[in-house]
Parts: sequence; C-alpha cells; structure tokens
Amino acid sequence: MRLGSDPGSMHTPTNPDFEARTRESFAKQGVMKLLGAELERVEPGLVQIGLPFRPDLSQQHGFFHAGVLSTIADSAGGYAAFTLFPEDAGILTVEFKVNLLAAADGERLTAIGKVIRSGRTLTICALDAHVDKAGKRTHCATGLSTLMSLVGRAGVRG
Amino acid sequence: MRLGSDPGSMHTPTNPDFEARTRESFAKQGVMKLLGAELERVEPGLVQIGLPFRPDLSQQHGFFHAGVLSTIADSAGGYAAFTLFPEDAGILTVEFKVNLLAAADGERLTAIGKVIRSGRTLTICALDAHVDKAGKRTHCATGLSTLMSLVGRAGVRG
Amino acid sequence: MRLGSDPGSMHTPTNPDFEARTRESFAKQGVMKLLGAELERVEPGLVQIGLPFRPDLSQQHGFFHAGVLSTIADSAGGYAAFTLFPEDAGILTVEFKVNLLAAADGERLTAIGKVIRSGRTLTICALDAHVDKAGKRTHCATGLSTLMSLVGRAGVRG
Amino acid sequence: MRLGSDPGSMHTPTNPDFEARTRESFAKQGVMKLLGAELERVEPGLVQIGLPFRPDLSQQHGFFHAGVLSTIADSAGGYAAFTLFPEDAGILTVEFKVNLLAAADGERLTAIGKVIRSGRTLTICALDAHVDKAGKRTHCATGLSTLMSLVGRAGVRG
Repeated sequence: MRLGSDPGSMHTPTNPDFEARTRESFAKQGVMKLLGAELERVEPGLVQIGLPFRPDLSQQHGFFHAGVLSTIADSAGGYAAFTLFPEDAGILTVEFKVNLLAAADGERLTAIGKVIRSGRTLTICALDAHVDKAGKRTHCATGLSTLMSLVGRAGVRG
Repeated sequence: MRLGSDPGSMHTPTNPDFEARTRESFAKQGVMKLLGAELERVEPGLVQIGLPFRPDLSQQHGFFHAGVLSTIADSAGGYAAFTLFPEDAGILTVEFKVNLLAAADGERLTAIGKVIRSGRTLTICALDAHVDKAGKRTHCATGLSTLMSLVGRAGVRG
Repeated sequence: MRLGSDPGSMHTPTNPDFEARTRESFAKQGVMKLLGAELERVEPGLVQIGLPFRPDLSQQHGFFHAGVLSTIADSAGGYAAFTLFPEDAGILTVEFKVNLLAAADGERLTAIGKVIRSGRTLTICALDAHVDKAGKRTHCATGLSTLMSLVGRAGVRG
Repeated sequence: MRLGSDPGSMHTPTNPDFEARTRESFAKQGVMKLLGAELERVEPGLVQIGLPFRPDLSQQHGFFHAGVLSTIADSAGGYAAFTLFPEDAGILTVEFKVNLLAAADGERLTAIGKVIRSGRTLTICALDAHVDKAGKRTHCATGLSTLMSLVGRAGVRG
C-alpha cells in the first residue's frame, strides 16, 4: 500500500526551481541551525533531513527527544509538500501525528517526508524516521502530516 | 466535555515527591536547556512549560517552529502523566498528535499538558499551547498524547 | 484550556438556518439510520449524537465497536463545523484521531463535537464520547478532527 | 520506508492457529455483519477487509461514510496485530488516526492493516483503504493505529 509513496514515478514539480527554493527556505528555519539539522535529499515529493546526535538534543535518558524527532519529521514532510507547490505558494502545517516505534538511541537520526497525496489546497505526507547506531539501523518513528498551500498571503511565503 | 480535565479535583499522586522527581527529570532533558524552556507549573496531572521567543527557534517566517511547539507540548504531556506515576516508573511517549490552530507568532509560547485518563499502563493527555504577543493571547495548538509507564526496565527511568 | 470550547459564547453562525440545514444533511447520511443514531443537540459550533446499544453495533466482546464510536464522533465533529458554515458550503473530513479511554460498554453511547477553531477553509473540532450504563457515565473516547469547507463544488454540498 | 511493512518476510506468528482464531473473532463482531464486511486476507501481520457499497453505508453525498471506512480500517489493523498475538491474549484499540485522501466513491471499499512494529505490550499498524469504481482504484485513506495486547484479563479476549 502507501500508494503514491514512490515520488520518483508519481510526482511532477510545477516549479522547476523547486530544489533551490526548498533549500533557501530551509536555510531560513532558525531551529534547523540550532539543532544542527542537514538537508540531505530534495526530490519532487520527497525530502530527507539528517541530524547528528548531541547531548543537548536529548530527553532524560540520553536519547533523541521525541520533540526533536518531530521537528525534523515535520520539516521533512513540509518541504516534501513544498517541492510540488507553485512558485508563489507558502506553506503551513495543519496537523501532524507521530507514533514512536523504538527509542531514538543512536549517533544519527534521519527523517524522511514523502507526499502521499498532493491536492490544490491540502497535501498529505507520510513521515518516517530511523536512527543509526554502530552500523545498525532502527525504524524509530512513523507518522502523517497535513500541509496547506497558501497563495497570495503576505508573511507566510516559504 | 474533556471529563477529568480538571486535575486538581480528579488526580491523586501516588508518589508524594512527584514535584521534585518531575523537576529532576526535566533538568536532565538536554533539549529543554537548548531551547530555553522553563518548567512553570507541576501539579498532579498537569504540567506547564513556557518558552521565550528567540530567532533560532523559528521556522521560515520567523514564528515558533511547529516542531519546537511540539517538543514542549510533548514534554508537558509526558510530565503531566509522570506526576501520577509510582516512584520507580519510567515514561515513554507512545504517540502524539498536534493540530496547529494559528501561527505561533509572539514573545512567549506556553504549553500545558493535562491528564485525561490515567491507567496502569497507559496515560492519555490533552495538550494545548498558546502564544502571547503584545498582551494578546492566542490559542495556537491543541493535541493529544499517549504515554506508557515502564516499571523495572533499566535505562528508561524518569 | 481548550480555549474556545464553549461555543455558546464564542461562535456566531453565518447562516441563520443552520439547524434546519444540519438536520436535513444528517437525515441524508444512510449510515446514521443504519446504526440508529439520533441527532440530540444542534447549536452553533456544537453537535451531539446519541446511539442506543444493539448487539449488531458490537465488537467481539459485546461493547460498542470503536469504529461505530468513531462514526458518530466524526459526524458530530463534522456537523459542529457545519453549523458555522455559510449556506452554500459543503463539508469534507480531512482527518481525525481518536483515543479510546475505556471500553464503550453500556446502553447508550453519546458523541459530542465542538468547534475549537473555525477558519475560512479549515475547522478544528474536539470530539468526546461517553457511555451510560446503569446510571453510571464513563468518558470512553476523546479525539480531534479537521474539516474543510467547500464552496461551489458540485456534488459535495452538505 | 515503512520498514517492516512487508509482513510476509518479517513477521512470524506465535500462535499457529492465528487464522482460525482471527476468523472466529471477526465473526463475533456484530457490526461487521451489519455493514456486510468480508474478511478477505488473514496473513501474519496483515489483514484485509472488503465492503461492497450499499446506500445505507453512505454520508450525505452518497459516498462511503468516513466512519464506515474507519470501522473496517480499525478492524483490519486490530486483526493484523491479533495474528501475531499469543493464544491467550485479547486485544484493545488504544488510538487511531485516519487521513482521508479522496472521496470514498465506488462500488467496493477495501481496508488493509499491516503491522509496522509488534511489541510485547503495544503493536503499531499502518492502515490504508482504497475504493474501486468502474475498474479504477483510488487510494482514499491512510492511517495509523496503536493496539494493546491483554493477557489474562477476563472479558476482553479476542
């Protein structure tokens, strides 16, 4: 299932400059810099963000905090949607939900957002995160997010 | 509705030291220090966390990033549940969901977690966040989270 | 919290015939008849639906099925949003989430949907359900839903 | 992503009679009979349920009601988890969330539940639904659910 989850074959960007535009918006997210998050992949309908572990990203047991995981997962989903938006559209997260599958215990956390459905107003993304520790990869979270495209509203452009 | 959402009258902590224990665990969350989050209220079944704005907590429009909001909301819900746990129990976020109601545009963000149902294994919390800007308060997010109590598992104590 | 959850004081319907229009749409939902659901309250931003128990609404233990509960909760939220819509707008459920707090074991199930935020395009509702058994009321579910207002799209009017 | 979503290769049932046990429990769900739902596939970690359209399963526009869709999706996820449970364990839905991707407009609705993570206490499932109309298949919903395994609690066995 997860029909439409292979964006390579399914999604065509309406803005040929989608990658530059996505990277430019990402660079404006102060919190990505604060966390040390890196934009690893920008494809039509798919964005991947990586995050090396630091103690100041942790919860009380020394693992990545669920909120930190959600922050990069939310951004991965938002930018995955954004790659398919027209040039003049801003983006807003409507809602998101995450199930934590395993402790995010490792050296590097990776979040992938993939567009499941791209509509005129709303886009739905699947979110997944894994953590790598000593060569072993663990799927540590899965989720869904709803994004809204905003055209012509000052102050909320991407 | 939101029956049971008035924790003052409904919830009795099993651990009389619940406040000290909650504050001690909060102090161990590296990410709370990184963000500058402050533990404002610790009551049986209710925790409130505040966060002053800084540019490095922002998304691309200069508002609080949805992930930052989720981070303090997740922690508020988790610690609200934690206040009702027995002394030897650790806590794990199972899942959470957040609806963003308005741009988190303001000087200070506040997240409140309240226990709706406290079970032996699982606790359900309501999450709400508001932002204050120039004396005006805006309800900017609402959500729900599911927490799990872990007794006797090394490495995951609160 | 749950700011704005008291619809009596907060919400003003844009369509004075909101109640008649809501009841008319409810009557068209074949599944409400099939389940035996009753529209109990229709107020600006609040709708309540009741459902007497029957064995054919059950899951394997003889309680109300979680899906049946979700069906009336989804409709309660959708119609709560609908009461605030302009006359020509249809409605669509974008997404919803339900936490089950206790077994829905009883003679009558009641779902209440309340508008938390009413926007031009999207409306967010809080969903709650309780079950009555031998005079005792149990809060058995809580949730959130996102509804979309559709103006001028044939085939999806309320 | 959706690691572990190919149950054929990943999941080993602990109870060799998982299929008979699942079919027996399904037959006890009164609401499945009421809706006319059919158990189409029962594999380790995967269950598929089909539902032919009838007007009394509709919302106000004549499509499958979102709650009906959720009912069979919830059951598909629950039974997918159930296939991996030990013989004496009952099951409870903790929470579920569904994003509606397209109108469920068609002759037959199909819901598939797949186990993403199977833990001792909690199991997480991916839910997906599609609708078939005149030979065309549309992915109309995607979701996630959390199930709890209950061992030795009278009255809640599968």
